[in-house]
Amino acid sequence: MGKICIGIDVGGTSVKLGIFTTDGKLIKKWEIITRKALNSQNVIPDIAKSVRDELAFLEYKLDEVIGIGMGVPGPVLPNGYVEVCVNLGWRDMFPGRELSALLDDIKVELANDANVAALGETWQGGAKGYSDVIMITLGTGVGGGIIIDKKIVAGRHGLGGEIGHIHVRDSEKEYCNCGGRGCLEQIASATGILHEAVTMLKLDASDSLMRKFGDDLTAKDVLDCAKLGDIIAVKVMDTVARYLGVALSYGAMMVDPEVFVIGGGVSKAGQYLVDIIDKYYDYYTPISKNRGKVVLAKLGNDAGIYGAACIVL
Amino acid sequence: MGKICIGIDVGGTSVKLGIFTTDGKLIKKWEIITRKALNSQNVIPDIAKSVRDELAFLEYKLDEVIGIGMGVPGPVLPNGYVEVCVNLGWRDMFPGRELSALLDDIKVELANDANVAALGETWQGGAKGYSDVIMITLGTGVGGGIIIDKKIVAGRHGLGGEIGHIHVRDSEKEYCNCGGRGCLEQIASATGILHEAVTMLKLDASDSLMRKFGDDLTAKDVLDCAKLGDIIAVKVMDTVARYLGVALSYGAMMVDPEVFVIGGGVSKAGQYLVDIIDKYYDYYTPISKNRGKVVLAKLGNDAGIYGAACIVL
Repeated sequence: MGKICIGIDVGGTSVKLGIFTTDGKLIKKWEIITRKALNSQNVIPDIAKSVRDELAFLEYKLDEVIGIGMGVPGPVLPNGYVEVCVNLGWRDMFPGRELSALLDDIKVELANDANVAALGETWQGGAKGYSDVIMITLGTGVGGGIIIDKKIVAGRHGLGGEIGHIHVRDSEKEYCNCGGRGCLEQIASATGILHEAVTMLKLDASDSLMRKFGDDLTAKDVLDCAKLGDIIAVKVMDTVARYLGVALSYGAMMVDPEVFVIGGGVSKAGQYLVDIIDKYYDYYTPISKNRGKVVLAKLGNDAGIYGAACIVL
Repeated sequence: MGKICIGIDVGGTSVKLGIFTTDGKLIKKWEIITRKALNSQNVIPDIAKSVRDELAFLEYKLDEVIGIGMGVPGPVLPNGYVEVCVNLGWRDMFPGRELSALLDDIKVELANDANVAALGETWQGGAKGYSDVIMITLGTGVGGGIIIDKKIVAGRHGLGGEIGHIHVRDSEKEYCNCGGRGCLEQIASATGILHEAVTMLKLDASDSLMRKFGDDLTAKDVLDCAKLGDIIAVKVMDTVARYLGVALSYGAMMVDPEVFVIGGGVSKAGQYLVDIIDKYYDYYTPISKNRGKVVLAKLGNDAGIYGAACIVL
């Protein structure tokens, strides 16, 4: 059999794993739960065991694996050091080295999960065929990843691609998790969209389809209502798109990628979302019509395992 | 004699040229005027002749030159194509290929002048010893350059590092040269600083040292008055520093460099300027104390020739 590589996406609920051919074909993917007890100290040993079991089951030997890439939910320094992973309770460790030690010193490379997703979409997803890409992941939070020459821009302090925490709104009164006020994430994440909608429904007493959902309203409902032309929902999404558009313009005028990839749960709204973002991206980037275009992500929740596998190639 | 390289910085008034050793020592620098008549069609032939004359004078042969780097005042595509250089009247040309053809097909590499200055400061200036750098040049306009792994991030459409045209102020009524409103350049360039001061002097009738300059007030005067504690001048520079600080925070959360280099005429204000920018950079980047620091440029007007020479190494 030919050589293979393994991509691992460590999340707060589950760890996703995938075995790939070196030309990007997914051979097998699976998940294990993230055992978070005792500051997630079992996570790395659990991964090592699961990798060994799966390779044995598929009749691969460890020396057929050219390397393992692993995405983790927090900043990663260039040397693989993780100061803190809030979601997991990890502190002051080198998770890649630990995994490598448990797997006969196989090569293990570490990166931030949002950066890894961006690399995955560049390798086999919505940005396939491109080299310079900015991905924005609109999920519970807003993640970001910047790829130049098909390589992750991780940053010297692990902050590369932290687009969710760029300051976009001066009037924001509430604090973001990062300690700032007015971060993109506070407006354009699923949580942010819902928050914008709830706020606007309070300020504007007029009719809205969104009212029938009551306390069960979700970001998806807001997007669905906006697509149906609901005036307040349209206003909410217009605000969201404006801040995303300005963030894209920052990306265009700093890194100037070939494409921007929009991913995450919110991106299921599809071309509608792309179009409203594009309107403001255009408005805030008058300097040139010749600039990166906006596309949708394609790999969904698998972007992480694809990107992680790609790091070691 | 050892091998040498040549750096050329094409400006609207003069062309600066420098001959360097390959380890970064300046052997000789000189200038020629930019003959802008007839859409600057003589500029490239003038450069070729000047290079030949100077090499002959110094008794170098053309085959001792490993290459020529050239910075030009406009966007440059990855293949060296220049669609337009407004300052020079150049349109639809490959200036590097033209120069090469006039110099026995020697290697000529082209880049944007602000990007080239950033590379120069990284090679031998304020960011010497670093690999990942963002430079902001505060001159008549606001230029920018991003360096990752000691290479220019030119962007796929020549917009890489166009930090002067990121949108930072929604309330701006006047248009920027780029067609936008509220660009960083409208506030933080020498022109912008003067404009802010004039506006604030009109709005605030209280005493100010700046009033004695009348219509001769310059950005330098504004900075000098601010250093002396003049209340209106301090307010002006506080506004300028706030927008520069937020721009630095965008850079930190996208590219996350090791250092930010502040250059251009305005940066002659020195550590005072760094300190007021730092205050807001800190405020807008609460996510981590562990991030790129702010330093002053060191090469002044020579940054362009240093950076241009460095491209071909």
